[in-house]
Amino acid sequence: MKAVRLHKFHSTPVIDEVPEPTITGPLDVIVKIGGAGVCRTDLHIIEGQWDAAMGTPLPYILGHENAGWVHAAGPAVTNVAVGDTVILHPTPTCGLCRACRAGDDMHCVASTFPGLSTDGGMAEYLLTSARACVKLDPATRPQDVAALADAGITAYHAVRKAVPLLYPGTTAVVIGAGGLGHIGIQCLAALTATTIVVVDRNPAALKLAEQLGADHAIVADGGHVAAVRELTGGRGADVVLDFVAEQGAEADGWQMTGRAGSYFVIGYGGTVHIPTLDIISTERNIIGNIVGTYNDLAELMSLAQAGKVTLHTCTYPLAAAADALADLDAGRVRGRAILIP
Amino acid sequence: MKAVRLHKFHSTPVIDEVPEPTITGPLDVIVKIGGAGVCRTDLHIIEGQWDAAMGTPLPYILGHENAGWVHAAGPAVTNVAVGDTVILHPTPTCGLCRACRAGDDMHCVASTFPGLSTDGGMAEYLLTSARACVKLDPATRPQDVAALADAGITAYHAVRKAVPLLYPGTTAVVIGAGGLGHIGIQCLAALTATTIVVVDRNPAALKLAEQLGADHAIVADGGHVAAVRELTGGRGADVVLDFVAEQGAEADGWQMTGRAGSYFVIGYGGTVHIPTLDIISTERNIIGNIVGTYNDLAELMSLAQAGKVTLHTCTYPLAAAADALADLDAGRVRGRAILIP
Amino acid sequence: MKAVRLHKFHSTPVIDEVPEPTITGPLDVIVKIGGAGVCRTDLHIIEGQWDAAMGTPLPYILGHENAGWVHAAGPAVTNVAVGDTVILHPTPTCGLCRACRAGDDMHCVASTFPGLSTDGGMAEYLLTSARACVKLDPATRPQDVAALADAGITAYHAVRKAVPLLYPGTTAVVIGAGGLGHIGIQCLAALTATTIVVVDRNPAALKLAEQLGADHAIVADGGHVAAVRELTGGRGADVVLDFVAEQGAEADGWQMTGRAGSYFVIGYGGTVHIPTLDIISTERNIIGNIVGTYNDLAELMSLAQAGKVTLHTCTYPLAAAADALADLDAGRVRGRAILIP
Amino acid sequence: MKAVRLHKFHSTPVIDEVPEPTITGPLDVIVKIGGAGVCRTDLHIIEGQWDAAMGTPLPYILGHENAGWVHAAGPAVTNVAVGDTVILHPTPTCGLCRACRAGDDMHCVASTFPGLSTDGGMAEYLLTSARACVKLDPATRPQDVAALADAGITAYHAVRKAVPLLYPGTTAVVIGAGGLGHIGIQCLAALTATTIVVVDRNPAALKLAEQLGADHAIVADGGHVAAVRELTGGRGADVVLDFVAEQGAEADGWQMTGRAGSYFVIGYGGTVHIPTLDIISTERNIIGNIVGTYNDLAELMSLAQAGKVTLHTCTYPLAAAADALADLDAGRVRGRAILIP
Repeated sequence: MKAVRLHKFHSTPVIDEVPEPTITGPLDVIVKIGGAGVCRTDLHIIEGQWDAAMGTPLPYILGHENAGWVHAAGPAVTNVAVGDTVILHPTPTCGLCRACRAGDDMHCVASTFPGLSTDGGMAEYLLTSARACVKLDPATRPQDVAALADAGITAYHAVRKAVPLLYPGTTAVVIGAGGLGHIGIQCLAALTATTIVVVDRNPAALKLAEQLGADHAIVADGGHVAAVRELTGGRGADVVLDFVAEQGAEADGWQMTGRAGSYFVIGYGGTVHIPTLDIISTERNIIGNIVGTYNDLAELMSLAQAGKVTLHTCTYPLAAAADALADLDAGRVRGRAILIP
Repeated sequence: MKAVRLHKFHSTPVIDEVPEPTITGPLDVIVKIGGAGVCRTDLHIIEGQWDAAMGTPLPYILGHENAGWVHAAGPAVTNVAVGDTVILHPTPTCGLCRACRAGDDMHCVASTFPGLSTDGGMAEYLLTSARACVKLDPATRPQDVAALADAGITAYHAVRKAVPLLYPGTTAVVIGAGGLGHIGIQCLAALTATTIVVVDRNPAALKLAEQLGADHAIVADGGHVAAVRELTGGRGADVVLDFVAEQGAEADGWQMTGRAGSYFVIGYGGTVHIPTLDIISTERNIIGNIVGTYNDLAELMSLAQAGKVTLHTCTYPLAAAADALADLDAGRVRGRAILIP
Repeated sequence: MKAVRLHKFHSTPVIDEVPEPTITGPLDVIVKIGGAGVCRTDLHIIEGQWDAAMGTPLPYILGHENAGWVHAAGPAVTNVAVGDTVILHPTPTCGLCRACRAGDDMHCVASTFPGLSTDGGMAEYLLTSARACVKLDPATRPQDVAALADAGITAYHAVRKAVPLLYPGTTAVVIGAGGLGHIGIQCLAALTATTIVVVDRNPAALKLAEQLGADHAIVADGGHVAAVRELTGGRGADVVLDFVAEQGAEADGWQMTGRAGSYFVIGYGGTVHIPTLDIISTERNIIGNIVGTYNDLAELMSLAQAGKVTLHTCTYPLAAAADALADLDAGRVRGRAILIP
Repeated sequence: MKAVRLHKFHSTPVIDEVPEPTITGPLDVIVKIGGAGVCRTDLHIIEGQWDAAMGTPLPYILGHENAGWVHAAGPAVTNVAVGDTVILHPTPTCGLCRACRAGDDMHCVASTFPGLSTDGGMAEYLLTSARACVKLDPATRPQDVAALADAGITAYHAVRKAVPLLYPGTTAVVIGAGGLGHIGIQCLAALTATTIVVVDRNPAALKLAEQLGADHAIVADGGHVAAVRELTGGRGADVVLDFVAEQGAEADGWQMTGRAGSYFVIGYGGTVHIPTLDIISTERNIIGNIVGTYNDLAELMSLAQAGKVTLHTCTYPLAAAADALADLDAGRVRGRAILIP
């Protein structure tokens, strides 16, 4: 089959002809890929930023945002059958550790991460596990939802954790209305009646944010912390969801967070630097967020199939993976780039 | 009446003869002080560290940990009567703002802080509010419980917030087994079946910690982060309660916190400095804590009256306030110093 | 002033000329009534059904759903000022008991209930307490929101408790799309992305329900339990909110509730009769609900002022109170009847 | 191997020689039984009470409370290895349904129930699944913990759900200090600082209850509802855990439950019969409880291995199963009867 493989860091991945994966374990599932999202993390992988953490031997197939149809299944698989339309949780999990038994898939002690730690989904077929498969309405086009597999689940997971804090009358700030943020805004609008304030440098992103449910859009031009303070009567926001968390956003996000409020870190790259006196005197929290649970993804798909979360995508044939990566790197992609084998 | 007043920063408070307080508001309560705790915060006040935040005009009466008997009450007071034994929540609150209406007294938008923002309890009588009074069993000696009014409520509040995270099989680390920490250990033992690990520089404090319920005591000698990792099978603790949060404890505390765990900041003085990648890749949280609710104090008194939380105290007559402050500053106080008018 | 007083059970209330109320307590507030809702409970009061529980001496003024403008305020009132537009929590509370200190106003051990236990709001002026006043945008017309003071808060309180159970993919059934139910539907739509199924005998009520956010409307014609089972793939609903709870609805509601689900009782009049084996073998819950907290009402007003909850009302002059009660009794009122002094 | 099989309802089970089970599925585990609890449910099974619900063809092996050592394991088993000491969750689950993915094992849509729906553990070997195995300290004797597999997990699950309601100052009533109840008392004492009140007809059971942590013991002699009211200042209990729920206990339990309190149904056999007005006017809840999650069992074993929950047992050789059942039926068993193959 054809697959997009990385052979060398700092070099463009290549379309290779490789053997199709085969079922070896009882819970193995092979998925015929219908859509594979292209993500900034793929650029970071190519640049070698994940090599220290993952140490995955090259070459291997990229692609960690995948949806398609079940092509083959091991003998113990009972939740999906050949032909089913599926979206894949990014990290197939063991199902037996404490975290898996509590539903906290993202803390499984023995998960894999196709596209980062093993062969991913920028290919005709992907080997995954029954535990990663969320079955979809057969009418769903995988290419339309693939990006929810990673960007979507991460945004949803953070918003869902924030829901109990966001009763009517509260304010939630979303920093960054890009790939994850624009999903987060839709999740906030679907799950809460909070006032949604979106902060971004890009006026076009803010315009989209307003269409997706933002009550207020603020250009991140230096006056944005003050603007949030003003919108909240000087109190600051109850929740700040920071999808950027670098280049100063992490300091701004904390400053926007009001007394007894919570600052949710979702993006990364920066460093929080906060006196403990500031933390205790206002009783504010900093909440970490990473991917999400299997049930988070299932819930998000329920929102997507009800039309409450939609994605802007542009598609490329698998063979044009290099173009998609180049366009993403150059800022030429509107919405999410999706490869279609 | 006699009262301990601060006339000048960096100078010892003085015993003054001042007028007794009088009832002016409908919810006013005057308490005859039975015990007033002496706290490190009093030393910080004397050094002027709170002047910028509070700006309280000198001279004023110190003392923010108070218990005694109701001496007089305004016409709208229905929860206590003259003669009742009471311990006082440190911040009399308005009762009408959203935070008060949600039970979050410590976030009242219009509270006062006797001993910091107004006259405190190192005196024969204190003016407070009905909303600050927790009624006690008449057999209680105020001097035995006064220190629970601030040190106690703060430790209890943090532990109570952590309880849902501390199911059997988890590990909680307490950093600092001093005034607050030794109450926190007792609260953990009373409210959870978690494994309690206490870290302190002082072997005598650790010995007390073990008597109070610590399962493991670790000397903070440089190997303590590794020791916590080892005790938890390499995973780190589920919860770290940091009663120090300065001088490196704040970095150690974060390092001791395991994946999906929470680092509770209760002490202050230091600065957390953490890459956002560290926060998200492990989904750890930093939880702020300040004082506690009125109901927290009532619950803590329930523990105290059942003998599940006890305090080590040494008493001084009110006239010896300067000695108590000097002993505290010099590290000569075992347990908590209490002034008795 | 003019007031609608009940002089005798089973007889029509009368418009009397009575003295205006006066401020006597420090937290007293007198509200000039702008709108007073007429509720089925008023019919029950007239029939004497509440006499055993309340024992309120006749004659007294009816009216427990009130909104208006602050006319006078006691000396300790700080949350509202003369001229403010306000809606009133139905039970002025003590502010000092455990329940009040936890925010659970409806469990205050010393509350009153104007319109049931003391003079109510079907009058030109009403005596209430600062603790009952929720301040509104001055542009709000009291007559447009008065019915939220009791019907609204009750529906909102139940829905808010159910929110954590109603993640995307779940199903909530609303039994009864009348006065409370039609507010409950709007609250569900505003606060969750659950699938909303409404069951009512009245096709017109179901039509309104669909306009207000119901995903499915089912006529209660005997096949409705089976219909809910079918809509949920045989599993039953995750949450059933029963605004009727009499005449068989209480049996139907339990049968519609799926394994691990919760049956919320909000209406009353019937009796649940359930084998304990049924309760444990499916681990279902029965959840009681009564009025709501002060903050519930404040949150609901936030929804109302954002246009997310609207009421259908028809107004009557105060002098036509007897007509309004008669119309309600005869089923001639569309939406909620509101008296305007 | 030898096994205790039921051949006919209303007739004593027989020791048969049957083939040992074999591994056929990838997650299968065969456990050499070290202890199998004898439960009242076994008596009910023999009487045919479970036939309608289960329809399990006779003959089959009884025994649903099992612990032992892993004897063989399928190829996909990674959480235990041959030789490991294990206790078994009563219902091996699919691991793939929404409930399993949320950690709610007891609501798995495809679980089995060895001893009720398939061959159980009153035998030398039992076929189960990796998902049912909780690995224990190798020093644990299976016979000492087997009864925690069903009686224990059920009591623990109910208590754990009640913990957030049982802050210091509250009161919890335990109805029934027998097999489940005496574990429930220990769990309450380990996990909360609530006041524990135990109600039982049997003075010996009450004596044991006091040794295990009960603060008050009340003989169920007709005055027990009034006694609970009196102990709680007339308010009733915050939580009632009813391990009986038949023969009037279900009415008493509800009456003992205070305003805003929760009545937990754990036993079964009776019928609750409650006006909806009673439910709403006091906002009380009825909470169903069944078995528990895998993690509940793991947590309970953590309590047991710390010595915080202990069981009274008397052992019988497997060949004496008929004696054990007869002794249980006749009320001659002190603690829990355990069969040892």
